[in-house]
Amino acid sequence: MTHADLLDRYAELIVRSGVNVTAGQELVMTAPVDAVPLVRRITEHAYKAGATLVTTFYGDDEATLARFAHADDKSFDTAPAWLFDGFANAFKAGAARLAIIGEDPSLLAGQDPDKVTRANRARSKAYRPALELIAGHAINWCVAAAATPAWARSVFPGKAPAEALDALWRAIYTCSRADTPDPVAAWVEHSRKLRQRTDFLNGKRYQALKYKGPGTDLTLGLVDGHVWKGGASTAKNGVTCNPNIPTEEVFTMPHKDRVDGILSSTKPLSYQGTFIEGIKVRFEAGRIVESHADKGADIFATMIATDEGAARLGEVALVPHSSPISASGIVFNNTLFDENAACHIAVGQSYSDTLANGGSLSKDALAAAGANASLIHVDWMIGSGALDIDGVLADGRTEPLMRKGEWAA
Amino acid sequence: MTHADLLDRYAELIVRSGVNVTAGQELVMTAPVDAVPLVRRITEHAYKAGATLVTTFYGDDEATLARFAHADDKSFDTAPAWLFDGFANAFKAGAARLAIIGEDPSLLAGQDPDKVTRANRARSKAYRPALELIAGHAINWCVAAAATPAWARSVFPGKAPAEALDALWRAIYTCSRADTPDPVAAWVEHSRKLRQRTDFLNGKRYQALKYKGPGTDLTLGLVDGHVWKGGASTAKNGVTCNPNIPTEEVFTMPHKDRVDGILSSTKPLSYQGTFIEGIKVRFEAGRIVESHADKGADIFATMIATDEGAARLGEVALVPHSSPISASGIVFNNTLFDENAACHIAVGQSYSDTLANGGSLSKDALAAAGANASLIHVDWMIGSGALDIDGVLADGRTEPLMRKGEWAA
Ligand SMILES: [Zn+2]
Ligand SMILES: [Zn+2]
Ligand SMILES: [Zn+2]
Ligand SMILES: [Zn+2]
Repeated sequence: MTHADLLDRYAELIVRSGVNVTAGQELVMTAPVDAVPLVRRITEHAYKAGATLVTTFYGDDEATLARFAHADDKSFDTAPAWLFDGFANAFKAGAARLAIIGEDPSLLAGQDPDKVTRANRARSKAYRPALELIAGHAINWCVAAAATPAWARSVFPGKAPAEALDALWRAIYTCSRADTPDPVAAWVEHSRKLRQRTDFLNGKRYQALKYKGPGTDLTLGLVDGHVWKGGASTAKNGVTCNPNIPTEEVFTMPHKDRVDGILSSTKPLSYQGTFIEGIKVRFEAGRIVESHADKGADIFATMIATDEGAARLGEVALVPHSSPISASGIVFNNTLFDENAACHIAVGQSYSDTLANGGSLSKDALAAAGANASLIHVDWMIGSGALDIDGVLADGRTEPLMRKGEWAA
Repeated sequence: MTHADLLDRYAELIVRSGVNVTAGQELVMTAPVDAVPLVRRITEHAYKAGATLVTTFYGDDEATLARFAHADDKSFDTAPAWLFDGFANAFKAGAARLAIIGEDPSLLAGQDPDKVTRANRARSKAYRPALELIAGHAINWCVAAAATPAWARSVFPGKAPAEALDALWRAIYTCSRADTPDPVAAWVEHSRKLRQRTDFLNGKRYQALKYKGPGTDLTLGLVDGHVWKGGASTAKNGVTCNPNIPTEEVFTMPHKDRVDGILSSTKPLSYQGTFIEGIKVRFEAGRIVESHADKGADIFATMIATDEGAARLGEVALVPHSSPISASGIVFNNTLFDENAACHIAVGQSYSDTLANGGSLSKDALAAAGANASLIHVDWMIGSGALDIDGVLADGRTEPLMRKGEWAA
């Protein structure tokens, strides 16, 4: 298939299986300016699916760099709250949300870490009203990727620019199953398999998971009434969507106060324009009390100091080491892909729909149940071919859940 | 100078002399995706000028066409109110506004006029809260242009695409004085000359203007306390800006109930993606009671039926026939340029700062003074080398103001 054919199939997959925009619904999209060709295909398919209006907000890495190069210091405590409030208002009025990502993973690598942190914090704070509606699954939403020259350069530094861009597109198509004969049907089947896994895990009612691997020895408590999720998921507005394309993970809610031990990252984390590598942390009663990183330690330390919830877990996710994304051998320098290549956890905001009835609980009730709250939600990879995980049953007995990174049951 | 040099000078001119974004101010920009290179230069100069944050909302003609080609009928009564409310909130919080235009003038020429009209009406209605802050000059704002392939093709249909684009950029630079040795200084001098003309007109206290030309025989009453404006103008936030680049007009407020006679357009009007040509209208007591157009008559009729104020005047503007834009001999198919090549009027919303104290009056008080209110503000060109205009003094005597399209006094 030509790139144009694949792009069109991928766009249709994102519209139909990803965000699943329904007739009469508005669609609010964000995308990098380099993604104009994909956005145009998505826009057409969204209108064909009955969207009343597709509104795209383009971001531009060059504009961000101009800000870091030339803006006054006080710029870095500023965020477009008026825009994010607009997003939240659109969601409240029923709009679906589609994020096309493809930013340069190391865009801000050379910038003042203090400015990076402050800008991220201001942005996270302003984005909170919109994020709560997404994290609470009030609406159907999806995150998918577009290959961009800067991202491709970062993934394939040895290739010529056009070749790198093409290789990244091909990898995206393959990981997203867009190059299969019937991508929409492939996603139905994929979702069915993830559902089998979540059904199995939900039946177990584990009270905790025990992780053992190089630099990792951790007991991670799960909230009572936790719900394992994965693949397609139904939002409160009744629309079933696939929030991530690709997705290989099953995930649930850790208890914010019941995590103890040490944990090491196994892949680089690209966090808003900088790389954080070699993370080692120690948890006590759910909180990170010691942290280290071989690279980006300052950014990491400031990230987990964003607020009280930023140093506690909001998500735990299991991905077999043999996942197709892992099998591709590519390190994407992008969480959407890399988190689906390895077991991971996220610090920060939890997803209330990974707790039974979580969507209808007050903030206080959620916190009492062990759900975490934060301005941030940052996934990092802890899985490898050397990771063993046990499940701790209600009566305290343990059983093997993963061995050497693969499902043991 | 190279195109890159000129683009940078033009961007700096837009930032410094146009919107004049001040230190500590946010900037909200809209632009076509084809204008990315200009927007990047503007963004850099805005940060250098002390902007805290530059946020650009890109529009895409292709997305608009996809909507007309594929969207369900009910789409055409929809507009992104959440976005425009966001703009209004940004302006209320102190942001400056910059609109970069460059759309295909005949983008929607082949589309169902009913859908075009409904989409425009929904958009105008949703945009109203933001428009009122701009029309009321609450903030510093500016409209400037970027050459785009589709616009260039429309202006220079005989030229090859690259040549047409280059010719349009050159015309934009020349009309904007960006190719003079010191563009910012050139604009200070230009504004001084326009100020001499507005001082002269403001001293006259004309109660009305009388127009005579081919197909035109009109008495146009001015509001008591009208203020002629032109060139640089100071917003209520205290910032002096040039709202249009280029600008050659001086303009003031007609009385919404005191316009009588017939009026003919002299240039094609590009109205939201379609052309309206050969407009002939008859006014009675301020209202258009008969209308005709050689082309686009349906769109025109629907446009002036948008609301009560859409068939009454909100602006009257004088431009000598020898203006540099007129002298270029180019018909730009774009109001920003063509209105500065000829005397024109606008139906719809009036600018409250063209009435003494208008900015502090209530809506009722503005209406009582003769100010017009509408969802739309559409300029069309009525000037030519064959137009004579007389001023009617307070005592009823008339005196020549323009003869054969040139200043007579
Ligand atoms: Zn995850
Ligand atoms: Zn996550
Ligand atoms: Zn005008
Ligand atoms: Zn006007």
